[in-house]
Amino acid sequence: MILADVGNTHIHIYEEGRVLHLEPEDAIEAFGDRILYYICVDPEVRKKIVALTYWKDLESKIDLPGSYEGMGVDRRALCLSRDEGLFVDAGSALTVDRVVGGRYEGGMILPGLHAYRRALGEISEVLDREPDWSIECSSLPKGTARQLSYGIIAPIYHEILRLREGLTLYITGGDGRIVASWFDDTLYDETLVFQGMMKALVSVNG
Amino acid sequence: MILADVGNTHIHIYEEGRVLHLEPEDAIEAFGDRILYYICVDPEVRKKIVALTYWKDLESKIDLPGSYEGMGVDRRALCLSRDEGLFVDAGSALTVDRVVGGRYEGGMILPGLHAYRRALGEISEVLDREPDWSIECSSLPKGTARQLSYGIIAPIYHEILRLREGLTLYITGGDGRIVASWFDDTLYDETLVFQGMMKALVSVNG
Repeated sequence: MILADVGNTHIHIYEEGRVLHLEPEDAIEAFGDRILYYICVDPEVRKKIVALTYWKDLESKIDLPGSYEGMGVDRRALCLSRDEGLFVDAGSALTVDRVVGGRYEGGMILPGLHAYRRALGEISEVLDREPDWSIECSSLPKGTARQLSYGIIAPIYHEILRLREGLTLYITGGDGRIVASWFDDTLYDETLVFQGMMKALVSVNG
Repeated sequence: MILADVGNTHIHIYEEGRVLHLEPEDAIEAFGDRILYYICVDPEVRKKIVALTYWKDLESKIDLPGSYEGMGVDRRALCLSRDEGLFVDAGSALTVDRVVGGRYEGGMILPGLHAYRRALGEISEVLDREPDWSIECSSLPKGTARQLSYGIIAPIYHEILRLREGLTLYITGGDGRIVASWFDDTLYDETLVFQGMMKALVSVNG
């Protein structure tokens, strides 16, 4: 079984427990004549994908109780991967979603970590610096580089801690390892979205 | 006495308790032949200003104990305005600085509120929406517009609450009224940076 998660920048392909992160054209060239199930959040890439006879859109099967009209299908699949938890997807955007007893309770959407870095760089040259993604957030630092690292990390880190309330923290996405490194106990797994897709497939096919 | 705070986008002029927010060229045209004290954080605008005979750079007099090399002179002036407090400047960037007993303890630098809005809009069309700056942050919402409003506001709001620790919260800057509206008890004042500049002038001139 092959699965594809079509994002805003890459197509992520899952095959036999392994994940490939490919440019859209490369993914279509390599997997265009293979049978697979996909979900897609990018309207432009979707136009190319719908022409592929062997690719089946799984979106209508991704049924997350409590979710809202317009919620990204990748976030819904992520939330389906476990019966409950606080789910973080750290990609181009950073999303945090809360599921309790199989039911979606709500979430938030922030710029992704590298969008913060770009946003600061656009404000002034002084702020155009690579953040230290591993900075300690126990007390307010001094120094421009440390203060902007703290300013990106601490508000997100503390808000996630606050929202967690005893739930297991599940983290995925391209910057997921960075976010996971801030916490003592968390589960980072780049296959979570695919696990949710598989659950949806199993429940449909019995 | 006239004071000028030269920022990255505007020159803010203080005269007889009133503040004007002017484009650099307009400020120079209107006030170029007036005697005033200024501070400046923009290297490009500085080049034009140093040519003005009547404008005196106050930077060397802005002496904030505990501050670090490279800290913006406007933030130092803001921190000088009171003996202690948590100081928020909500401009193109959003800074939070902590002063206890006249001594600078540290701070953080985030993108300004409108930089968040732009950063989200650049990620995908779906996220290109005007946030609701007055959203309630008591529980995780549903819906894209509400989730991105929450995602900008809640982490900043809760981090400021956390850092406050009984200090008075002083807020200034172009988006200062928005940030102040999130809190029950806070002091918003667009003249705080100028108050710090005046304190520096008084201590120099005795």
